[in-house]
Amino acid sequence: MPEVHQVILLAHGSSDQRWCETFQRLAEPTLKSVENSAIAYMELATPSLHDVVASGKQAGMKNFTVVPLFLAAGRHLRKDVPAMIAELEDQHQVSIRLADPIGMNPKLGDAIKDVVQEELESPLD
Amino acid sequence: MPEVHQVILLAHGSSDQRWCETFQRLAEPTLKSVENSAIAYMELATPSLHDVVASGKQAGMKNFTVVPLFLAAGRHLRKDVPAMIAELEDQHQVSIRLADPIGMNPKLGDAIKDVVQEELESPLD
Repeated sequence: MPEVHQVILLAHGSSDQRWCETFQRLAEPTLKSVENSAIAYMELATPSLHDVVASGKQAGMKNFTVVPLFLAAGRHLRKDVPAMIAELEDQHQVSIRLADPIGMNPKLGDAIKDVVQEELESPLD
Repeated sequence: MPEVHQVILLAHGSSDQRWCETFQRLAEPTLKSVENSAIAYMELATPSLHDVVASGKQAGMKNFTVVPLFLAAGRHLRKDVPAMIAELEDQHQVSIRLADPIGMNPKLGDAIKDVVQEELESPLD
């Protein structure tokens, strides 16, 4: 039996509710198709990464994969998030793997091309 | 004959060269398949949006579409970029349409799901 494992889509977070709603919509296809997946925010919005790891642990999860909903890695993904993860692993005695930001995967560049082509086909305002 | 038109993929920009390289790779499929397309940065990297519009104008372009390589709209896309665009339109006597950020298009959510599924299939470290 495979070990119970949770995927956490990690967005930066914003105090602007419209910003968070966009990320909720971006996360929807994943949340619908991947069992034990959740969205979490680094700061300025809830649930936080801490909240999601804590409830996952309570529900029996010991392994997490954090997939950053960031197009590229900047200071947050190189420093802040690894530090948060180290603290959470220690605090909850779980294992958390930090995946590459989504923008490192070539599928994103292909999706961008498709979006631009759709944009060019749509009637101009 | 359709009017000559340029697509500008607009990324935020960073002083971290690795960050910019990720965006250059994200832009590649579009730059290869869409004629008259270019990448530009809002700040902290070159070419700037100003640079790209100025050379486009010199090459005879009068219409531009700016597609933001942002997952969601925050202050930059709601305030700063529209202000930059208004100034460039005035300065260069061109027309610049600001498209939605790429993350508003459902194709991005689908690509994220595909990335997560690939991530789960890859052997764990």
